[in-house]
Amino acid sequence: MKQLGKHIILELWGCESQALDDQPGIEKMLVNAVKACGATLICVKTHKFSPQGVTGVAVLSESHISIHTWPELGYAAMDVFTCGEHVKPEDTIPEIEKFLKPEKTEVMDIKRGIIDDGEVKE
Amino acid sequence: MKQLGKHIILELWGCESQALDDQPGIEKMLVNAVKACGATLICVKTHKFSPQGVTGVAVLSESHISIHTWPELGYAAMDVFTCGEHVKPEDTIPEIEKFLKPEKTEVMDIKRGIIDDGEVKE
Repeated sequence: MKQLGKHIILELWGCESQALDDQPGIEKMLVNAVKACGATLICVKTHKFSPQGVTGVAVLSESHISIHTWPELGYAAMDVFTCGEHVKPEDTIPEIEKFLKPEKTEVMDIKRGIIDDGEVKE
Repeated sequence: MKQLGKHIILELWGCESQALDDQPGIEKMLVNAVKACGATLICVKTHKFSPQGVTGVAVLSESHISIHTWPELGYAAMDVFTCGEHVKPEDTIPEIEKFLKPEKTEVMDIKRGIIDDGEVKE
């Protein structure tokens, strides 16, 4: 059995509101997270909402990292999806926590593209 | 109890290999999927890999849609993450299936940002 993609879903609660609304800071955090997990960045796109909140996506040679923030609730939803043996999505977590300073990080691990000897696993 | 984000994970198997490697076609499919679910597109970015495979991300006012394809295996991994009551991520599925023609679509529904009267739900 083999999985094509490693996908971790991060629910970050009790983050610093200022960090969650800091578009340049979030863009830098994404770039640092890409480096931390050994992935290759194709491009990064962030968007600031009015009155608050930031969305960001880093497109990688090995899939993507995304973030959507709710500064008013101290909450960020992140996804780190990678493929290839050399990239470990969980290695992004310290970089993310260093910037957002969550009180609680929930991690859900999802195996994507499970194949068995080239056959689809039912 | 309230959820801030609706996130569906799509595992698409037995897709048409040609569609999975068609960068302009995938970009158009993403734009159509955004329209189908009533979301607002901020930007779309796609990337073609050598020798094969496409990655695409649509950044939305309501979060994102992503796709990563393995034409050699007939497989695509997609995520549709939306927020706001007016957007239904599952409404993207007919547009996606029309283009990729999967033999099998597995859907996983994940509730993101679950809050209870403004309190974090433990």
